[in-house]
Amino acid sequence: MLTKARIKLIRSLRLKKYRQQNNLFVAEGTKIVTEIVQSDWSVVQVLATAAWVQQHEALLTRQEVLTVSDKQMQQLTLLSSPSPALALVEMPDPAPLPDLTRQWTLYLDDIRDPGNLGTIIRLADWFGWPTICLTPETVDPFNPKVIQASMGSLTRVELPTIDPDTFWDHAKDIPIWGAHMEGTSIYDATLPQAGILCIGSESHGLSSHVEAHCTDHITIPRQGHAESLNAAMATGILLSHMTMKKQNQ
Amino acid sequence: MLTKARIKLIRSLRLKKYRQQNNLFVAEGTKIVTEIVQSDWSVVQVLATAAWVQQHEALLTRQEVLTVSDKQMQQLTLLSSPSPALALVEMPDPAPLPDLTRQWTLYLDDIRDPGNLGTIIRLADWFGWPTICLTPETVDPFNPKVIQASMGSLTRVELPTIDPDTFWDHAKDIPIWGAHMEGTSIYDATLPQAGILCIGSESHGLSSHVEAHCTDHITIPRQGHAESLNAAMATGILLSHMTMKKQNQ
Repeated sequence: MLTKARIKLIRSLRLKKYRQQNNLFVAEGTKIVTEIVQSDWSVVQVLATAAWVQQHEALLTRQEVLTVSDKQMQQLTLLSSPSPALALVEMPDPAPLPDLTRQWTLYLDDIRDPGNLGTIIRLADWFGWPTICLTPETVDPFNPKVIQASMGSLTRVELPTIDPDTFWDHAKDIPIWGAHMEGTSIYDATLPQAGILCIGSESHGLSSHVEAHCTDHITIPRQGHAESLNAAMATGILLSHMTMKKQNQ
Repeated sequence: MLTKARIKLIRSLRLKKYRQQNNLFVAEGTKIVTEIVQSDWSVVQVLATAAWVQQHEALLTRQEVLTVSDKQMQQLTLLSSPSPALALVEMPDPAPLPDLTRQWTLYLDDIRDPGNLGTIIRLADWFGWPTICLTPETVDPFNPKVIQASMGSLTRVELPTIDPDTFWDHAKDIPIWGAHMEGTSIYDATLPQAGILCIGSESHGLSSHVEAHCTDHITIPRQGHAESLNAAMATGILLSHMTMKKQNQ
């Protein structure tokens, strides 16, 4: 039975404070729920409509499943419109700081928009970038809107949140590329074997803290007149060119 | 004075039917309003707060300007949150069918999401693609959410809506690239001097009508596991690679 306490718990998890207090988060939607139940993450409960449960029975062998009505899903949803399935999930262990000398790593410098972070997680998964390092001011990856925008890629990308001082200590002697409005064209840049690609916040660009560590500025050449590209769009274009360069090495 | 009739007219223009009936549309936000008042489009009236009018006085020499309160802007807005300025604008003349033999042209095959169309208009402006041809089923470019997402690029990109039969008759002997999950890698493709890049709808991809005309399928190679890329993201990545190839020719 769906208790009032469970409804209250789930609804509280829209806020980071309660996700941290309870060490739990909510994933909504068929794509992400089916990804999570097949991952090694600990699912406390899957809450879904009878039709959904029936359709996905084969995947739900290890989890506690509670069948709920459409009306109850409307009460539970943390998004603007409910989906037929929702999972209450234990927070995975914090991702470790990656070995920055072995491969390219993304570094997000205070990205605030959940849609942008979710899109960037999906991009990293598409282009096979294993790790996105997040500043403490970057939007929480377990925010329901980030999870929605990541379209199921959340379980496949490591997302360590790292204190900047610790990160930059760890990043000594690594090539550090800052995405910038002016700099070396990504069309012409020579790709080192490993490095860090830094993406600045939507409103302020790269922080002075990050700027101080950049070894290069990399830009997407503008041919026309638009003032800027969105942070997630710029990331996608840069990842694609860098992936191509890696293949051609 | 802001009359009830004017409020009613502006609010009605959130719907395509009333935009067509009145041959008018509404542009909201500082960026797009300042672009439009400096373009050759006919502005019926700029409605803005006193502070905004004072700040932008130098630009407002040719237009009728009505100062309104914040509260009135809340009544007028067609978006989820009001901006300090809004322009009531005559629809520009329909854009002509472009000369497809001279340059690359984008063709959007039933893109339904206003955010995606707005983002693609901004991308075309960034990469200097002059024309985006739209199918009649594609979301109207004068939809308020498209205008918002286009971030001021609306005045700089031609956006003809064309009956598919007319378009494909006109496109004979032109290379036609369909963006697809499988096909020639954009990293390896050789770029003809001119052609048409077709982007399919968010849910159905390219229609069979368009598929029948494609001379090539072009893909963004996937290295990881994400299921897909969003239509606007795929467009941005393709435009960037094609722009680079053009430069290197």
